Order: sequence, then structure tokens, then C-alpha cells
Amino acid sequence: MAKGTDANIILTGFSYTGKTRVGQEVARRLGWSFVDIDDEIVRVCGKTIADIFAQDGEGRFRELETEVLGKVCREKHMVVSTGGGAIASDSNRELMLGSSVVVCLEAKPSTIYQRLLKDTEESGEQEVRPLLTVPDPQGRIESPKAARQPYYALSDWTVHTDNLTIGEAADEVIRGWRYIRRVKAAPQDAACVVTTATESYPVFVGWDSLDHLGKRMRDAGLGGRAHVVSDDQVFPLYGDRVKGILEKDSFATDSKVVPQGERSKSFDTAVGIYDWLVAGRAERGDCVVALGGGMVGDLAGFVAATFLRGVPLVQVPTSLVGMVDSAIGGKVGIDHPEGKNLIGSFYQPKLVLADIQTLTTLPQRELVSGWAEVIKHAMIRDWQLLEILEQKSADLLKLDKQDTAGVVARSAAIKAEVVSADEKEQGLRTILNYGHTIAHGLEAATGYARFLHGEAVAVGMAGAAILSQRLGMLAPEVVERQRALLKRFGLPTSCSGVDIDSILRAMDLDKKVKGERVRWVLLADIGQTVIRDDVHRELAVSVIRELLQS
Amino acid sequence: MAKGTDANIILTGFSYTGKTRVGQEVARRLGWSFVDIDDEIVRVCGKTIADIFAQDGEGRFRELETEVLGKVCREKHMVVSTGGGAIASDSNRELMLGSSVVVCLEAKPSTIYQRLLKDTEESGEQEVRPLLTVPDPQGRIESPKAARQPYYALSDWTVHTDNLTIGEAADEVIRGWRYIRRVKAAPQDAACVVTTATESYPVFVGWDSLDHLGKRMRDAGLGGRAHVVSDDQVFPLYGDRVKGILEKDSFATDSKVVPQGERSKSFDTAVGIYDWLVAGRAERGDCVVALGGGMVGDLAGFVAATFLRGVPLVQVPTSLVGMVDSAIGGKVGIDHPEGKNLIGSFYQPKLVLADIQTLTTLPQRELVSGWAEVIKHAMIRDWQLLEILEQKSADLLKLDKQDTAGVVARSAAIKAEVVSADEKEQGLRTILNYGHTIAHGLEAATGYARFLHGEAVAVGMAGAAILSQRLGMLAPEVVERQRALLKRFGLPTSCSGVDIDSILRAMDLDKKVKGERVRWVLLADIGQTVIRDDVHRELAVSVIRELLQS
Repeated sequence: MAKGTDANIILTGFSYTGKTRVGQEVARRLGWSFVDIDDEIVRVCGKTIADIFAQDGEGRFRELETEVLGKVCREKHMVVSTGGGAIASDSNRELMLGSSVVVCLEAKPSTIYQRLLKDTEESGEQEVRPLLTVPDPQGRIESPKAARQPYYALSDWTVHTDNLTIGEAADEVIRGWRYIRRVKAAPQDAACVVTTATESYPVFVGWDSLDHLGKRMRDAGLGGRAHVVSDDQVFPLYGDRVKGILEKDSFATDSKVVPQGERSKSFDTAVGIYDWLVAGRAERGDCVVALGGGMVGDLAGFVAATFLRGVPLVQVPTSLVGMVDSAIGGKVGIDHPEGKNLIGSFYQPKLVLADIQTLTTLPQRELVSGWAEVIKHAMIRDWQLLEILEQKSADLLKLDKQDTAGVVARSAAIKAEVVSADEKEQGLRTILNYGHTIAHGLEAATGYARFLHGEAVAVGMAGAAILSQRLGMLAPEVVERQRALLKRFGLPTSCSGVDIDSILRAMDLDKKVKGERVRWVLLADIGQTVIRDDVHRELAVSVIRELLQS
Repeated sequence: MAKGTDANIILTGFSYTGKTRVGQEVARRLGWSFVDIDDEIVRVCGKTIADIFAQDGEGRFRELETEVLGKVCREKHMVVSTGGGAIASDSNRELMLGSSVVVCLEAKPSTIYQRLLKDTEESGEQEVRPLLTVPDPQGRIESPKAARQPYYALSDWTVHTDNLTIGEAADEVIRGWRYIRRVKAAPQDAACVVTTATESYPVFVGWDSLDHLGKRMRDAGLGGRAHVVSDDQVFPLYGDRVKGILEKDSFATDSKVVPQGERSKSFDTAVGIYDWLVAGRAERGDCVVALGGGMVGDLAGFVAATFLRGVPLVQVPTSLVGMVDSAIGGKVGIDHPEGKNLIGSFYQPKLVLADIQTLTTLPQRELVSGWAEVIKHAMIRDWQLLEILEQKSADLLKLDKQDTAGVVARSAAIKAEVVSADEKEQGLRTILNYGHTIAHGLEAATGYARFLHGEAVAVGMAGAAILSQRLGMLAPEVVERQRALLKRFGLPTSCSGVDIDSILRAMDLDKKVKGERVRWVLLADIGQTVIRDDVHRELAVSVIRELLQS
């Protein structure tokens, strides 16, 4: 009996922490059964708890408790309320913690006292509960509660109920149960796991990992039909194979192929996919599988996010930039004629599966472009990854199976870590924009035609590093080290011939602008980013000019 | 010093629960300062904690601790790590709980022991920590930890760190801080508060409450420009007033007026609003104000949800159905030619403000239609509201200020409660679809032309009640009571002349269909819903036929 995804919920805690009422509400919300262990013991024995204690002793009562608990824990879909002392018994505690998610409902003694008073008033009992007739009744709560506190602390999760309604407490119990369950149930062989406030999903990286797509999707709890969205470059290579793999795992499939390239990230293409889903009577229980590079992931992701207010999404990135960056973290969207990604949302996939083997069919220039994001991750977060990139560049450029899988997994994990910390780009996630301020300007100024995104980011990183150095923050050796590494991977570090006014104009329109000031992600060292919105325009312009001239 | 929205974060807990490392990470993520109280005491006194204990006694140490804590708690934006014993001192505890959100980091003794071992290995210390040289070292953790447990239990929030990374633990601390803060900081005069897993927002209901819109928005932390979206029926009545109120509170405003009616819930209209926002250089820090009925709320909400991956949204419903239903709960969307609301998402507003006075200018038929949702809320959740509706119908139909505000607030609170329990319609929220299964069929079959939504829902409720009765679940008195109330508010309970085949066809396409089976929300009593997906088609058809003939 391990705490798997099936784990029951056991509530523990002192009297008047709401174990019964919250437990019933949790059961109602999950559609599960609610059992009160004390009630069950009374039912089984045919006498009251007080009688069992008086006639048979506490030892016998704990035995009965263990017996009933054991039976209940073998069932599925149970919400179990235990007596306040159950968890203090060694055998009970082992049983509870070994089989279920144990949630402690906590309340301060003053809260418990108030609830007790209110309850007594409301029930209008003539016979006041004994506790209220003694001197210092609150003290009479504190002392036995204190004695149990060390056992309550051994729970998996605690909910402080003092200021919560029954519904809010139930909410928190369910959240805790989901959280603990997924901590326990995270696949051992995932490269990393993304964990946001409400969701968690694994990222798998491996050679020929496509073969396990169906199983991975089943493991993630997906069912229904799989609506595969791809482009006319990727689908001919992997479409039939993916559909076959999914069908082997009993997914009915259909597929929609859009033209390759950024142009497909449009309203019109999105509408075409909605129409296809409507025509195919897609349902909320189905899923959308995005098979392709960043464009397909963004586009299919946006449609999945907004069709029927969200259907499950599976990201199967086949480009390097998709694997280490765009498929992870839930940024989905389409372009507006005035700017890239202006329409979109944050919508996390249920899983990400990257098959390194698909990189072998990626056009060389796109592959190179992807390395820019890997180098970016190393620069902003991981000096060890930087050393690996420097030492293994030859093997990586040849897509050596093991080295590439290792580096992609590590780079993906960096993205996952940052996104887990800040899903909606309100803080930490901003650091991923290292190199992107200039890059966006450059891409827009050249009509998204001259540079691939990664190429523009490479130039932008070169610029951001020089700017960091000019501001006295970054050692020139680091600037050079980054430049050399970008070069080694075949990436540009300058951009002669672009019109500077177009770049600057585009940078003002950049959607990362806040209150009309440009926010720069700069470096103080490898792995140390600094956000600055006080960079003088002239200094920035001179650095961009340097990129144009070098 | 109350725990307001400015409250600092104080971490408590035993050794090796991660107070320092998690605290530093929390500070980094929030952009706050981190202070370790013990370090600060050492700095202030110029001698080690051990020396203070040895030379001046524990009493003196606790005094110093209180002094330093007091100073730190008066600062803003602080993450404070306390020594494991600080919370056991009465004066310290009062100070901590009175001024800050106190979060306890918890770990099981076995976890603490493992962390201690690992730490000792990693630091490669020759001189092994004393704890590891004694027999039963884990027992040596358990006993002092147990002694402190009653004090740790007095914290506002607890995070069990056993299976969490530093980042995950920091996440949970921040979540707890947000949650506690908003529990403390919820506006006293809100009609209700919606609380989802990640967000919380107030719903205000009142006569002339529009006058406070600017202040309410400031209180909710909104700034930047206010982009007002409205329709050509509502804007001429309230547009200038709203813009004036917002400008008085220093919001720059602009406005976009779309044609009134469901037809505006289209791609084309959405694109028009995107274009307007892009042209106006709207930013993430701005907000969208949806001023109007359900259509405007859905449409402007969808644009807010998807522009720049989400800009803050304020719902200002001016229709009854908006006030009690559509503006609350974050369902936003647009229509697809094949079905209503097929494109959309869940996107919660920052606040909802309903001015009852605006109902006086609502066309009579739309007002009546809104009462259907109020009656629905009473039927599925609140027998007392049902009695009020029955007793006060005359006053409510005349829009008596106090009665109407009271009933609207109560109905809004029901919606808020259900949504708080189940934001994404995975469980409880389904009950709000009471009456909607037939209603959607009816609306689609009549091309959304003959019935207003509320009218269709009224017919649908009549049908659902009859169906419940036929299934032996519901007393005929309740069916009749609902019918009489719907009639009293001027709502239809039958629908002669509609083509039954069109209705049934439309019901199959209904997006609430799961695995091709129709899920019915039925009643067992007032306030008691039952979800059934095993209703025989023939029975359902016969009930619908009855609605057509009566």
C-alpha cells in the first residue's frame, strides 16, 4: 500500500477543527464516500465509545480502531475522519501514513473555544458540555491538544481552519491531497517536473521516446480521442508513426496539418482548427497533441486552451527550441499583425515528451537556432551546463545520443524550474528574456524574415552581455566566453545591415515594456541575472549600434 | 499592526526544516529583504548566541530577540527567519502573530535526521556534529521538537517540507501568505468573495455602487489605463459616467463600443477589440473594464484573458443575469458558428461591481430573463432565498432598492460559493447547469432568436423538475412551486411550436455532453441536486414533448 494516485484522504486533528463537516464536504466535492471511524466502531460493536473505554479499556478501543481503519484503507475513494487520538497510536499512525494522504485540520485553542461556545448555544442544550463549566476552559483545551501536537505534526499536510469556511477548508484539503499525491506519484524517469500553483506535469526526454507516447498519456490520466495537430514539414516524417503509437494504446486519432512557418500562427489558422474540432465533435475529455516545433506548440496550445474553455494538451516538440523552451511552461499564443504572440494565454500541458531522435530530421539552421536557448539557460542559471556545452560542443553538434539527451534534459529542467517558481511571468520568469529585448526588436525590424528566433536571441545575448559589461556589472571574460560559445555553435553575435531606427521603434512596442520603460535582463556573472529598467537609452543605442557594426 | 496586505512573512519551525534557505528563496521571488533574527542578534550584540546564553542567560536572549523582532516587524517587505524557539516565548509570539503572517516549516524527525546527515557529509566536517555521536540520534530530535510542537501549531500556515524542493517550499510559503493575507484583507462590505486555487476577488452589490468603481479598483491594486468595453445600448447610458468616475481616481480611460446583442460575441468583434488595444498600446499593467450585460462580459473577458496572455479584468455587469451569474466565476468566451461559447477560457476578474440602479434601465424582458437565474440559484442551493422570492416578488419586480440589493447579493453569493469550490467545472459547478440541458437545445433549435437565455433556462428548469419527478426523485409540490414562481416572475414554463427534432439534435452537440451521454442536473429537493447520466432517452424526449404541448 503506497501512496499512489489512488490514495484515500484521512483527516486528523483536535475536536472542533471540523474533521466531520470538512470531511463530508471533501467527499461531496470529489464524489467519494465519507466514513467516520468512531461511528464505524460504534456500528460494528453495537455500543458507544464511552462504553468500550469503560468496559474493555483504551487498549481494546485502539485495536478496534486499527481494525476498522485497516478495512477502510483498503477501499478506494474514501474520505476518512479519525478520532483526535487515533494518530497517537503507533499502529494506527503507520497504517494511516503508509496507505493514505493524512491531512491535519488545525485550529488555535481560542478558535476551538469559540466554536464550542457557538455550538452549545446553537444546539440550545440545557445540559452544558462539561468543559464549559470548569474554570479556565480554554486552558482545558490547550493542555490535551498540546500533548497530541507532536503526532499531528507527522501528517502529510496541515490546514489551518481558523479563518476558513467549511468550503475553503475542503478546498485546501483537496489541494493538499493533490499536491502530496503528485509528489509521491511523479514519474521516476521524467527529466523534470513542472509544478505550478494548480498543476504538475512531467517532461520526458529521450532517444526514441515517441514509442512511449501512448503509455505516457495513459499514465497522465488522458483518454478520449487524440486530436493531432502538426505542420506539413513534421507530419510527413512522424505523423503516421505517432498516430499508430496512439492507436496501439487505444486512442482514436485524427489529425490536422497546417502549413509550416510562423505565418500559421494566425487567427485564420486557429479558426481552421476550431472548425475541424467542432466538425469532429471534440469533447472536453479528448486531448490535443501538438506534434512539431514552436509554432505548432504555440498554435495548437492556444486552440487547446480556448476550445470548450480548455481541453487537455500534450506537447510533443520536434525542434530543439521546443524541447528546451517553448513546449515547457504553458505560454501559448498566436500573432497579431502588429506583433508576435500578442494574443495568447498561460495554459499548461498535461505532459511534454521530447524525442531527441526527431532532431536528426530538423533543418540544420533550425537546430543551430535552438542551441541559442540552451546557451541562454546556461548563462542565466547553470555554469556547469556552460562547461559541458564548451567541452562537448563537437559531440552535441553531431547529436550524439547520450550527450544530447543529457544536455536537453538539463536545459529543459532549468526552464521547468523557472516556470514552476513563476508561472505567469510576474517575477523570476522574466530572466528567461535574457537576450530577448534586442532580439524582438531585431526580428520585428527585419520582418521576421532574416533571423530565426534563436539567431536573434544570440545577437541579443551578445548585446545584453556587452551592456552588462558597460554598466560595470560583468567581467569582459564572461562576455567573450559567451561570444565564443555562440560562435562555436554557429550562431551570429552581430547583425550588420539592419536599420537601427526600425529596431528601436520595434523595441518600444515590445510587450515586455512596463510603464514605457524598457526592462533589461542583464548578467552580473554566469548564473546571476539582474533586471534593470534604468538603463540610459543612449547607452543601449550605442550597444545596438556596435552589434550592427561588428 | 494588523495583518494587512502589507504583512511580512515570518518563518518558524525546527532546525533543518529549511527556514533560512526557503526564506531566502521567498525573499528573492518577492523581491523582498531576508533577515535571520539570530544573525541580527549576533550582529547587534557582537557576540555569539552561545555566549549570550552562557554569559547573560536565556531570559536576556529572549529580550534581545523580542527587541530585534519588534524592529524588523515594523519594516515592510521582510521575510524573517526566527530561531526554532522564538515562537515559544509569549512576548515574541504575540509580536509575530500580531504583525505578520507566521508560516511554520514542518518536517518529520526522520527527514530532519537525513538532512542533518547529508549536511554533515557534504560539509566534510572532521568534527562530527555532537548530535550524531549519541545513541538514538533520531530520538534526540523527536523529544525537543515535540516540546515545541504546541507553539508551532499556533502558526497561521504550515508547509510540510519533507518531499519538497527549496523552490516548491518557497512556492507554498508564498501561497500561504497570499491566502492568509486575503482572508484578513477581504473587504468587509463585499457581498461575497470568490476564492479559487490561485486568486481571490470581491463582488460588490449596491445601489449607485458605480460611484465607488475607481476606489474599488485602486483597492484591488489596479493601475495603468482603464480600457472600457461596452455595447451601444449600455454605453450611452453609463459610459461617460463610468469614465468620469475612473478619471477622478486618476485612471486614464478609453472606450470601445460594440453593437448590442449576441452577434457581437464573434471572432470578428474580438479581433476589432484586439486591434483597438494594440493601437492604444495597452500594456499588461492596464486593465479592461467590461461595462454591460452578459455578452459584453463574455467578450471583453475573453479578450482580456488572451491579450498579452492576460490583462486584469473588471466586471461591471449592468444586467441582472450578469450580476448574479455571468460576471462571477471567470467563464469568458465567444461563439463559434456551430455553437455558443465554444471558444473561451476560465479567467477570473479582479473584482465584480454590480450597481442595482442600472437595472432600472434594463429592457423589461431582459430583466425578467435574469430572474430565471436567481430562481435557479434558490432551487439548487437555498430554500430561504426561495421563500424570499415567493414573499417579496411584488417588491422585487418593482426593483425595490433594499430588497433587490439583498436578493442579488444573496444570489451572487451562491454563484461565488459554487465557483470557489470548483473553478473549472470538474465537479460541483455542474449544478449551475440545472435547467441548461434543455435550454441549450431550445436556444439552438430556435436559432437563438425566439428565447432570451433566461427564458430558455426557465423552460429547461420546468423540464428538469418534471423529469426529476418522473424518475421518482422529486415531490410534485416542488415541481409546482417552481412553476408558480417562474410564472410569477413572468417567465415561460413551456415552449409550444418548436421543432422537437431540432431540439434533440442540438442537445447532442451540447458541450456538456460527456462521452456522448447527456448529463442531467436534476433535483431531489429544494437545494438538493443530483447529476444523472443514465436517463433514458425516451423519458427525456417525452418530457420535452410535454413542454412543447403545454
